[in-house]
Amino acid sequence: MKTITLTTDYGLSDWYSAALKGVIGGIAPDAQVIDVTHDIEAHDVQHAAFVLARIWPCFRPGTIHVAVVDPGVGTTRRILAGMYSGQFLVAPDNGLAGFVHVEQECQALHVVQNARYFLPNVSSTFHGRDIMAPVAAHLANGVALESFGPQTESVRLLDVPARAAAVAGGLQGRVIYVDRFGTLVSNIGADQITAVGGAGPAPGISVSVASVEGLPLCSTFADVPPGEVLTLIGGSGRLEVAINQGRAVDRFGRDPRIDLRRC
Amino acid sequence: MKTITLTTDYGLSDWYSAALKGVIGGIAPDAQVIDVTHDIEAHDVQHAAFVLARIWPCFRPGTIHVAVVDPGVGTTRRILAGMYSGQFLVAPDNGLAGFVHVEQECQALHVVQNARYFLPNVSSTFHGRDIMAPVAAHLANGVALESFGPQTESVRLLDVPARAAAVAGGLQGRVIYVDRFGTLVSNIGADQITAVGGAGPAPGISVSVASVEGLPLCSTFADVPPGEVLTLIGGSGRLEVAINQGRAVDRFGRDPRIDLRRC
Amino acid sequence: MKTITLTTDYGLSDWYSAALKGVIGGIAPDAQVIDVTHDIEAHDVQHAAFVLARIWPCFRPGTIHVAVVDPGVGTTRRILAGMYSGQFLVAPDNGLAGFVHVEQECQALHVVQNARYFLPNVSSTFHGRDIMAPVAAHLANGVALESFGPQTESVRLLDVPARAAAVAGGLQGRVIYVDRFGTLVSNIGADQITAVGGAGPAPGISVSVASVEGLPLCSTFADVPPGEVLTLIGGSGRLEVAINQGRAVDRFGRDPRIDLRRC
Repeated sequence: MKTITLTTDYGLSDWYSAALKGVIGGIAPDAQVIDVTHDIEAHDVQHAAFVLARIWPCFRPGTIHVAVVDPGVGTTRRILAGMYSGQFLVAPDNGLAGFVHVEQECQALHVVQNARYFLPNVSSTFHGRDIMAPVAAHLANGVALESFGPQTESVRLLDVPARAAAVAGGLQGRVIYVDRFGTLVSNIGADQITAVGGAGPAPGISVSVASVEGLPLCSTFADVPPGEVLTLIGGSGRLEVAINQGRAVDRFGRDPRIDLRRC
Repeated sequence: MKTITLTTDYGLSDWYSAALKGVIGGIAPDAQVIDVTHDIEAHDVQHAAFVLARIWPCFRPGTIHVAVVDPGVGTTRRILAGMYSGQFLVAPDNGLAGFVHVEQECQALHVVQNARYFLPNVSSTFHGRDIMAPVAAHLANGVALESFGPQTESVRLLDVPARAAAVAGGLQGRVIYVDRFGTLVSNIGADQITAVGGAGPAPGISVSVASVEGLPLCSTFADVPPGEVLTLIGGSGRLEVAINQGRAVDRFGRDPRIDLRRC
Repeated sequence: MKTITLTTDYGLSDWYSAALKGVIGGIAPDAQVIDVTHDIEAHDVQHAAFVLARIWPCFRPGTIHVAVVDPGVGTTRRILAGMYSGQFLVAPDNGLAGFVHVEQECQALHVVQNARYFLPNVSSTFHGRDIMAPVAAHLANGVALESFGPQTESVRLLDVPARAAAVAGGLQGRVIYVDRFGTLVSNIGADQITAVGGAGPAPGISVSVASVEGLPLCSTFADVPPGEVLTLIGGSGRLEVAINQGRAVDRFGRDPRIDLRRC
């Protein structure tokens, strides 16, 4: 049984996500459809791209991920169908593949063009239903990637760097994701921290976020009292800035400067 | 494998939708349950009715759609089980079937009365769990529509007309649905526009919304700059009023006058 | 086919709930995963505990319920795996089992400790993905409860009493749950009301909520005009305080005093 996941900004109060499920069921009745989220903020490509990259390691080989955050629907933006580390991605080429492309091994990448695999009538504003859901369902049925269109090498990446910049004595990071708890996820990877000076509760590391200096690198939220700021290597494998039982984004905004130094 | 879809205003933070899934699984363990949405605004029957009508063409014959937006639960309002164009609907008779009844072919319609197919103890406020979910599960198990109760001809329709009114030289439309992007979906059908003067980017058509006249009929959102108003034939097959990367409902409200004219 | 349900405060816009689904699918590909809700307010253990207790009677024997509202993640708080009335619960021992433990028969209770059933690398902040989802999947595969760790007798309960207090001539209740419609669900059970003086529309019962006295015990919302306060025995089997087509919580707050008396 093949699994198809859905990541969209369609929201939860309309008929859009259900339309995709119906279309998939009509073409690949045995495929299992899993909602990743339909609650990406409208047009927030970067958020969706990070979600995709984080779930990639959790799913089985052969899983087909459909991502639709598509402000350019109906324009000349391309739709891609690719294979990364044994799993498939079907998405507009607008940055949605940005983090997966950097983190996983790209094994094949094609431009979706073959209308034989689309719905008979393609609207100009709902390519999730009319193109991407049917393509994913045909993938689940075993249609080969090359059937959907010509090979390509290029993928549109995101403006924010996927990895923090190395600077003298440390790292300078950026926030690349804010989660529902208001925790700020940075682009400082656990391996980058290890390279600078160690991991876990490390007296050798000091983090500053905006004008707050000397923040501890903790193991878990409860290492500081409720309401206090902490940093930790989160479930994302990256340095995260959090407030125990609070919201870091309310204190620091969405893009504070993050510096990590050996001390 | 039978598919049962759920469309409710139960929201996403309570136990109500899961109760339906548990009940269905107990009666029809092999049925596949698909969430259409549980995030209909409380008591917004018309929104749910439109969602149902839009997903109908996407699902396979035999699909069973359960809709529960039910402010009259526990009163004498009837519950209907019907077949429209090969798919089933189980819903209170309060307008939820309004658009499906107009758009699809009604092949059978029965009043749900036979308590043999209900849960043993029927509460007065949770007929979704106690009546409609079990009836849907028994339908999935092959129980015939006529087993649930007597045939009926009448269905409660909605106050808003499903189709725009023809006026001299054009159409006068109403908004029948507002989506999460703030796009206003009208009751002006693509076929009605074609009858007036053409489809697609048509110089022969002029649309006015409230006091804004001469709006273009575009192919897609990106045909106008971000922030600009446009109209297009949307994924719903109807004239929609949108703002590229913005929210038309914030500018026009939920019920602006919409006039479409040949020019 | 085994069913695994998920009840979390992960929200709907992040990658957390999908990570659990991916992990479960990797270990128990045939298990059916059902979303109960991921929209528990952050850290609201009591709300989630009540949701679990309400869905318990709806699901089949053998169902595995995973609940993750876990502000103490990474501390010494225990994780429990138990069997209640033939169904399984996997959850942190922080009150999540509070209502189920009181209402259902506890048939086995173990502390989850055996890392053989965890993901290889356990993070300090995402035990839902790294411990609880894999344990649930192994349960679905038939691994016995005792394999996960030592037996225990103790369960952390909630501060609010699961049942209303009997007082002279009646009952004094507390609100234990507020639903999305703003309805206040009390800890006054239907059986407790019957013991005091009757059930259903009973002239022998008078309810006061905060300073509003003599409220009717109705059968359904529509027994009073829109906007009026009523009480009824809801789908939860408990006394609920509601406003017909309105929100009782907006009028009474989240914790008004509730007194029920024979009169």
